Amino acid sequence: MHMDIINGPNLHLLGKRIPAIYGAISFDVFFHQLKKKFTYIDFSYFQSNIEGKLVDQLHKISLKEHPQQGIILNAGAYTHTSIALADAVQSISIPVVDVHISNLYTREPYRKINRIAPYCQGSIIGFGLSSYTLAVYALLSFFSEKMSK
Amino acid sequence: MHMDIINGPNLHLLGKRIPAIYGAISFDVFFHQLKKKFTYIDFSYFQSNIEGKLVDQLHKISLKEHPQQGIILNAGAYTHTSIALADAVQSISIPVVDVHISNLYTREPYRKINRIAPYCQGSIIGFGLSSYTLAVYALLSFFSEKMSK
Amino acid sequence: MHMDIINGPNLHLLGKRIPAIYGAISFDVFFHQLKKKFTYIDFSYFQSNIEGKLVDQLHKISLKEHPQQGIILNAGAYTHTSIALADAVQSISIPVVDVHISNLYTREPYRKINRIAPYCQGSIIGFGLSSYTLAVYALLSFFSEKMSK
Amino acid sequence: MHMDIINGPNLHLLGKRIPAIYGAISFDVFFHQLKKKFTYIDFSYFQSNIEGKLVDQLHKISLKEHPQQGIILNAGAYTHTSIALADAVQSISIPVVDVHISNLYTREPYRKINRIAPYCQGSIIGFGLSSYTLAVYALLSFFSEKMSK
Amino acid sequence: MHMDIINGPNLHLLGKRIPAIYGAISFDVFFHQLKKKFTYIDFSYFQSNIEGKLVDQLHKISLKEHPQQGIILNAGAYTHTSIALADAVQSISIPVVDVHISNLYTREPYRKINRIAPYCQGSIIGFGLSSYTLAVYALLSFFSEKMSK
Amino acid sequence: MHMDIINGPNLHLLGKRIPAIYGAISFDVFFHQLKKKFTYIDFSYFQSNIEGKLVDQLHKISLKEHPQQGIILNAGAYTHTSIALADAVQSISIPVVDVHISNLYTREPYRKINRIAPYCQGSIIGFGLSSYTLAVYALLSFFSEKMSK
Amino acid sequence: MHMDIINGPNLHLLGKRIPAIYGAISFDVFFHQLKKKFTYIDFSYFQSNIEGKLVDQLHKISLKEHPQQGIILNAGAYTHTSIALADAVQSISIPVVDVHISNLYTREPYRKINRIAPYCQGSIIGFGLSSYTLAVYALLSFFSEKMSK
Amino acid sequence: MHMDIINGPNLHLLGKRIPAIYGAISFDVFFHQLKKKFTYIDFSYFQSNIEGKLVDQLHKISLKEHPQQGIILNAGAYTHTSIALADAVQSISIPVVDVHISNLYTREPYRKINRIAPYCQGSIIGFGLSSYTLAVYALLSFFSEKMSK
Amino acid sequence: MHMDIINGPNLHLLGKRIPAIYGAISFDVFFHQLKKKFTYIDFSYFQSNIEGKLVDQLHKISLKEHPQQGIILNAGAYTHTSIALADAVQSISIPVVDVHISNLYTREPYRKINRIAPYCQGSIIGFGLSSYTLAVYALLSFFSEKMSK
Amino acid sequence: MHMDIINGPNLHLLGKRIPAIYGAISFDVFFHQLKKKFTYIDFSYFQSNIEGKLVDQLHKISLKEHPQQGIILNAGAYTHTSIALADAVQSISIPVVDVHISNLYTREPYRKINRIAPYCQGSIIGFGLSSYTLAVYALLSFFSEKMSK
Amino acid sequence: MHMDIINGPNLHLLGKRIPAIYGAISFDVFFHQLKKKFTYIDFSYFQSNIEGKLVDQLHKISLKEHPQQGIILNAGAYTHTSIALADAVQSISIPVVDVHISNLYTREPYRKINRIAPYCQGSIIGFGLSSYTLAVYALLSFFSEKMSK
Amino acid sequence: MHMDIINGPNLHLLGKRIPAIYGAISFDVFFHQLKKKFTYIDFSYFQSNIEGKLVDQLHKISLKEHPQQGIILNAGAYTHTSIALADAVQSISIPVVDVHISNLYTREPYRKINRIAPYCQGSIIGFGLSSYTLAVYALLSFFSEKMSK
Repeated sequence: MHMDIINGPNLHLLGKRIPAIYGAISFDVFFHQLKKKFTYIDFSYFQSNIEGKLVDQLHKISLKEHPQQGIILNAGAYTHTSIALADAVQSISIPVVDVHISNLYTREPYRKINRIAPYCQGSIIGFGLSSYTLAVYALLSFFSEKMSK
Repeated sequence: MHMDIINGPNLHLLGKRIPAIYGAISFDVFFHQLKKKFTYIDFSYFQSNIEGKLVDQLHKISLKEHPQQGIILNAGAYTHTSIALADAVQSISIPVVDVHISNLYTREPYRKINRIAPYCQGSIIGFGLSSYTLAVYALLSFFSEKMSK
Repeated sequence: MHMDIINGPNLHLLGKRIPAIYGAISFDVFFHQLKKKFTYIDFSYFQSNIEGKLVDQLHKISLKEHPQQGIILNAGAYTHTSIALADAVQSISIPVVDVHISNLYTREPYRKINRIAPYCQGSIIGFGLSSYTLAVYALLSFFSEKMSK
Repeated sequence: MHMDIINGPNLHLLGKRIPAIYGAISFDVFFHQLKKKFTYIDFSYFQSNIEGKLVDQLHKISLKEHPQQGIILNAGAYTHTSIALADAVQSISIPVVDVHISNLYTREPYRKINRIAPYCQGSIIGFGLSSYTLAVYALLSFFSEKMSK
Repeated sequence: MHMDIINGPNLHLLGKRIPAIYGAISFDVFFHQLKKKFTYIDFSYFQSNIEGKLVDQLHKISLKEHPQQGIILNAGAYTHTSIALADAVQSISIPVVDVHISNLYTREPYRKINRIAPYCQGSIIGFGLSSYTLAVYALLSFFSEKMSK
Repeated sequence: MHMDIINGPNLHLLGKRIPAIYGAISFDVFFHQLKKKFTYIDFSYFQSNIEGKLVDQLHKISLKEHPQQGIILNAGAYTHTSIALADAVQSISIPVVDVHISNLYTREPYRKINRIAPYCQGSIIGFGLSSYTLAVYALLSFFSEKMSK
Repeated sequence: MHMDIINGPNLHLLGKRIPAIYGAISFDVFFHQLKKKFTYIDFSYFQSNIEGKLVDQLHKISLKEHPQQGIILNAGAYTHTSIALADAVQSISIPVVDVHISNLYTREPYRKINRIAPYCQGSIIGFGLSSYTLAVYALLSFFSEKMSK
Repeated sequence: MHMDIINGPNLHLLGKRIPAIYGAISFDVFFHQLKKKFTYIDFSYFQSNIEGKLVDQLHKISLKEHPQQGIILNAGAYTHTSIALADAVQSISIPVVDVHISNLYTREPYRKINRIAPYCQGSIIGFGLSSYTLAVYALLSFFSEKMSK
Repeated sequence: MHMDIINGPNLHLLGKRIPAIYGAISFDVFFHQLKKKFTYIDFSYFQSNIEGKLVDQLHKISLKEHPQQGIILNAGAYTHTSIALADAVQSISIPVVDVHISNLYTREPYRKINRIAPYCQGSIIGFGLSSYTLAVYALLSFFSEKMSK
Repeated sequence: MHMDIINGPNLHLLGKRIPAIYGAISFDVFFHQLKKKFTYIDFSYFQSNIEGKLVDQLHKISLKEHPQQGIILNAGAYTHTSIALADAVQSISIPVVDVHISNLYTREPYRKINRIAPYCQGSIIGFGLSSYTLAVYALLSFFSEKMSK
Repeated sequence: MHMDIINGPNLHLLGKRIPAIYGAISFDVFFHQLKKKFTYIDFSYFQSNIEGKLVDQLHKISLKEHPQQGIILNAGAYTHTSIALADAVQSISIPVVDVHISNLYTREPYRKINRIAPYCQGSIIGFGLSSYTLAVYALLSFFSEKMSK
Repeated sequence: MHMDIINGPNLHLLGKRIPAIYGAISFDVFFHQLKKKFTYIDFSYFQSNIEGKLVDQLHKISLKEHPQQGIILNAGAYTHTSIALADAVQSISIPVVDVHISNLYTREPYRKINRIAPYCQGSIIGFGLSSYTLAVYALLSFFSEKMSK
C-alpha cells in the first residue's frame, strides 16, 4: 500500500513559523511519527512552491502502478486559485484527499473557494497536522470499502 | 469519554434513499458498528428535522459535565443557512466537528456556504459514513493533544 | 386516489388577514368546497409554522402506500429559504405540485428565489385559492398521463 | 367566451423535437384535443418567432371586444429577456396567463428571470402541454369569480 | 397596558455566556428589574429556539384583546434570515419594536440584513439589556402619541 | 451632565415638510419640550448641511471637558455615505448615539448602509422625534451603568 | 432640413393607454402640432414593434442624402436591451437624439440601463411628449453650432 | 417668471479647461447669451464646490415666492453620490431639471448612477452648454402645460 | 455538400462602414471569393436584422435534406442576448459554427457573453472575414472526421 | 515560415486520458500529421505545466528573427487565470492565435473568462485537435493579407 | 520650487489620537522637520474637513504660477468617495502625489477604492508620516526627469 | 545594510518594450545607477517569471542574517493573483515594500486587486523606475525610525 503526501507553497515552513496558525511541530518530525504509526504503509513526500511542479508530480505518481495507492494533497494557497491543479487531479484515477491544517472558514474570504476539492474523495480541514493522519484513515477506509465490494 | 452525534434534517433517511449520494447502509447499522469499533467511548445520538431543536440539543449537551466530551455535528441543509445553529456552536465550549457525508463541492453552489464550520474544530467532508468515523478519530486526537500539553 | 395539501407558515390566516394579498375566503371554507368538487379524491390537510415539521410531514406521507398519491405544497415563506424542505421533496417519490396564492413576481425580490420548485412536478403561482384547484387538475392530468403509458 | 393562445419562438416545433424536454405530441394534435374538451370556448392560435410580432398580436387582440376574453401566453425564450412584451402585457386590460411546458427551475439560470409574469394573472410552469389546459381552467375560474362579484 | 417580550434562539443564555457580547446579567434578573421599574405595565415573556414557534406566538398574542398592547421582539439570528417571522409581524396589527442587545453593525456582515425591521415600529440596536428598557419607553411614547390624536 | 444633539442635511426642515415621513412638529418645538422634560441635562444643538462642518463640530465637542457628556447624532443622508463622519466618530471618546426619525428599512435600499453606526454606542431608528428622547434615555442608562462599575 | 422620428415598441399606443405614465395626447395629434410649430423642418415618422425593423430603418435613413439631417429615437423597451440597435446607431453618421417620455429613473431598475445613449448626441428624459420638442431644439442647436464652425 | 441655475463642483471652470469634454465657451459668456435670448425670464446663478451649500441654496430658493419658478441643476460630480442633494430636491416643490453638459453614458461607469434625477422633472444630458438652453425650454413647456390645465 | 452562411444584424454593412473594426471588403466581394475557393461546396447566404427571422431561417434550413450540411452563423449583436436563437441552434441537428469578425474580447464587456456558442460545434473569433473561411475548413474537417468513423 | 505551438498545463496528456473531452489521438501523432500536411512550414513544439516557463518561452521565441513567424498558444487552465501570460503575449509583436480543444462555453463558468485572448489575433475554440489545424490556416491567411498590403 | 501639502478630513488630529493607526507625532512637528530637511523648497499647508473646500484649494493653487510646483494630497476619507475631488485633480495640470499614512490594504474594504489616484502621478501608501517625505522625493525626481528631457 | 530587489514576471523586459507604460531605461542601467547613488547599501537582484521561484527566493532571503535588511518587491502580474506570494511575505519578518512602475489605477480593473500589499510595510505605485528609489528611501526611513526607538 502506497500513499503520496504532496504539500504546496510555503508548507515547508511548518513548525517553523506562525505557530498560531500552522502549529509548532515541524513537518519532518510529524512525517517521522506518521511513518512509525502506519508501518504497513509506504509513504512518499513531495513539496514544491511551484504550481506546475505540483501538476508534474501528480502525473508522475499516476504512472506508477501500485495495487493500492492514494494521494494526500495540501495544495496550500494554490487550493484557492489553481485550475491547473484541479484539472490534474481530475485527470488521474488515484483517489486524492484534500487536506488543510488550519480552519479555512475562519480566515480570509478567498480561502473559502476550493478549486481542487470537487475532484477529490473528500476534504479534511482544520485539525492541525492531525488532518494528515485523518487523511490516512480516510484512504484506509476507502480501500477497505472497495475491497468489500 | 463521551461523544454526541447530532444529525440534522433528512438524515434519518440515510441508507434508505438516494444511495447514489448518501450511501446504502442505514445510520442505525452504521451507529452499531461505530459503537463496536470504539467500545471505550460513550456515544449518544440525536436527530431532528427542526432547526431550533438542534439548537436546544447543543445547549442541553453543554450542560452535562463530562471530563472529555465532543460533538459530531452533521447539520444537513441547515449547515448552509442557519445562523442560529452557528451561534449555538459558538456559545458552547465543547469541541464540535463539522461532518458531511457527500462531497459538498460537487453539488449545488449554495452548499459551498458553511455557516457552522467557522465555530468548529474542523470539517470532514465527502467520505460517506466514514466521515463520522474520521470525526471520532479527530476528537480522539484533539483530546490526546490537549492531555499532552 | 389521495392528495395531501400542506401549507407552510402564516397560511392558517388565509381569509382572515390581508385580503388584498391573500383573498377573503378562509382556507376551511375553501377546503370544504374543494372536497365537494372532487368527491372521488381523498384529501388530507396539514399546516405548520415550523420548517422541520413540514419536513417530517413530507416523510410521513411518503411512507403511506396509495396507488395514486400526490402532494400540493404551499411552503409559504420557506419556499424562498428552505434547503431542508427542498431536500425532503427531492428525497420522496410522490409527485409534488408547488402552489402559491399571490403572484410572487410582483412582490419583494427575495420571493423570486424558489428553493423547492426544482424538485416539484411544476408550479402554479398567483391565482388566489384557485391555485390549489389548478394543482388538483395538474395531479389528475399527471395520473391520467401515467396510466396511458 | 374567447381565448387566444400565443406561442413564442421555437414553439412551432412542439412534438417534433427534443421530446425529453417538450413532450412528444405536436401542438396541432394537442390544440385539436383542447378545442374538443372545451367546446363552449372559442379558441384562436398565433405563433411567431419574432418578438415584435408577438407585441403586435397582443395589441391586435386587445382591440377586439369580447365580453369574456383571456390570453394564454407562452413567450418561450422571450419570457426571460423581453421588456417589450412585458410592456405590451402591462398595457392591455385582458387577463393573461403565463404558461411554460418545461420546469424552468431545473434548467439554465437565466430561465429563472421572468420579465412577463409580473403583469400576468399568474404563472403555470412545468406540466408539459397540460400547462395550457390548466391555464384554460385558470381563466374559467377567473371569469366565474368576476361574475360572482 | 400589556407588553409581550419575545426572545429568539440562543437568547435564554443571556448573562450566562459570552458576556463580552451579550452582557453579564441574566435575563431573569433583568426581567425582574424591568417589571419593578414599570409596575403599571403587565409584561409577558416568551423564548424559543424554534422559528415556527415564534411565528405561532406572534399569532397567539394577536388574538388577545388588550386596549393597549405592544410587542418587544429580539428574534436573534432569525432576524437576518426569517421571511416567515417577517410575514407574521406584517400580518398582525399590534405595534412591534425590533430590539438587539449587541451592535449588529460591528459584527459579521450577514447581521446587517434585517428581514423583520421593515414591518416594525422601529429598531433599537446595541445598548445591551437597556435596549429592552428603551423599547418599553418607545411603546409608551407610541401609545401616548396615539392617544393625543 | 451635557448632551449635544447634531443634525445633518435637510433636518432643519423637520415639521415643515413631508410630514408623512418626518412628522408634523418642528424641531424647535420638540427641542423646547425635550429641555423641559430633562431639566437636569444641559443640551446643545447644532445643524449643518455641510458634511465637513459636522466633522468639525464633532471635534470641537470632543475638546470640551464635561464629566458626563454624550452626543446624539442624526447624520441624515450622510449616514449612508460619509466615511469622513465615521472616522470622526471613531476618533473621539465621547459616547455617540445614532438616531433616525424614519424607519430606514422601509425606504430606498441605499438607506440600509450605515457608515456611522459601527462606531456608535447603538442605534435608534424609526420612532419619529421620539427617537431623540429614547437616545437621551440611552445615554442616561449608559452613564448610570458606568457609575455602578 | 430633415428630421426622422423613430418610435419603438408599444409607443403607437401613446395617448391611448396608461395616461398616468405616458400622457393623454395621442402621438398623431402631437405630431401634427410639432409639424405646425416647426414648418421649416421636413419630418418623417416611423414606428415598429420589431427590433430588427428599427435597425433596418436606421440604415435606410442613413442612405438618404440631406444636407442637414437628424434622428429623434425613442427605442422604448429596446433602449434597455438592444445591442443591435446600439450597433446600428454607432454605424451611421447622422446625429441621433435619445428621447424618453417618462422619467426612467423613477421606474423599474432595468430601465436605468441605456444601451443606445452612448452612441447618441445626448438624451432627453422625462418631459412627456415635450421630450420630442426638446429633441428638435437640440438638433437645431447642433446644426447651428456646426454651421458657425 | 424666475429660473435659478445651480452649478456644482468644478463647473466654474467651464470654458477654461478640458474643452474636449466641457466645450470652449466660458459659462459667463454663455449665461449672458442665455439672458439675452430669454429676456422675459428673470435668471439667477449660483455655483459652489461644497455639497452642503448646494443643499442650502435649494432650500433658500424654495422660500422665495414666485408665481412661476423653476430650477436648472447641474450637480456635477455630486449627481452620482449625493443623497443629501437628492433629499433636498425631493423636499422642495419647485420643478427641477437635471442638466449635464457631457454625455455621461460615454464616461466612467460611476457616472451612470444618478441620485438626483428620480426627484426631477426630467434630465437633459450631453448637448454641451445647449443642455441649459434646452432646460429653459423644458421649464417653459412645463409652465404652459400647467396653465392649460 | 451544402453550407449556409447566416449573418445577423448590421452585418449587411460589412466593407461599407467602420473598416477599423469590420474590415474594408464588402461581404458580397468576399462571398464571391469564397465560392471560387471552394467550388465543390454549395453555399447559401441569408442576412436579417430581425432576431425571429434568423430563428425562422435556422428551422427552414433544418428541413432540407442534404447528406452533408453545415451552418456558419455570425449572429452579430444577438450573439450576446438571444436565448431564442440559442434554443433554435440547440433544436436542430445540423452542425453550426459560431463566427465573429472582430476580436470580441477587446470590446465592450457585454460582448464576452455568448448565448449561442454552447450549442455550436465551436467558435472562431477575431480573424476578420477569414473567420468565415476558417469556419468552412472547420466544417470540412468535421465531415471528414465523421466519415472516417 | 515558422510556427511555434505552445501547450499549457495537463495538455501533454492529450490522447491519453478523458477522451470524451479531449479526443482520442495523442498530440505526438497529431503533430506528426500536421507537419506532413504543411511541409513548407517549420514547426516547433513546447509544453510546460509551469506558468512562468510558458512566459519564458514566449519571450525566447520573440528574440528569434524569422521573416514570417506565428505562435499557436493553448494555455490550458492558465487561459482563465494568468495575467502574467497575458502580459507576455501583449509585450511581444509576433501574432498569437488562442486555441482550445474543447468547447469552453459548455464547461465550468470559470472557463468563460479568457485573460489571454484580448492580446491575440483571434481565438479558435472547440474543434478538437482540428483547432490547431485551423490556427495554422488562420496564421497563413494573416501572413498573406499582410503581404498583399 | 513650490510644494503644497493638502490634508483632508480628520487629519488635523495627527499625533493627537489613535497613535496605533496614525503615529504619535503631531503634523505640526512633522511639518517643521520637513521644512528643515528640504530648505530649498517653499512649502504651503492646507487642511479642511470640507470636501468642497479641498476642491476650491486645488483650483486656487492651479492659478499660481510657479516654475516648478507640485501637490502632495492626502484626501483622507474623501479618497474613497469623492468624484468631485477626482474631477478637480484631473482638471489641473500641476503634478499631484496621492499620499496615505496607514496601509489602506489592511483596513476596511471600502478603503481599497481610490477615486483620486487615477489622476495623480502616483501613490505612496502606508509609511506613516514618512509617506509625505517620500512624496517630496517623488516630486523632486519628477522635476529632475522633466528637466533632463 | 542589505536590500534585495525582487522582480516578477515580464519585468526583465524593462526598458526594452512598451516604453509608453514601463519607461525607456533598461533595469540593468537603472540598477547600476541605484547602486552608485546608495553606495553604503549592499543590493541583490533577483528576477523570475515563475511564481513559485519568487516564493522560494523570499524564503531564501529570510534565512540570511543581516542586522538591517529589507526587500523591494515588484511582483508584476502576480501582485493581483498570488495568494502563495502573499503567504510567503506574511511568513517572513523582513520588511517588504510593494513597488509598481506604472499607475495601476489607470489600467485594467483587475490590477486594482493587490494580494500582497496587506503584508507589506507600504506601497509605492506609479513613479516609473523612481518607484524603486523611493522604496529605498522608505526602507532607510523605516530603519532610522526603528533605531530611534
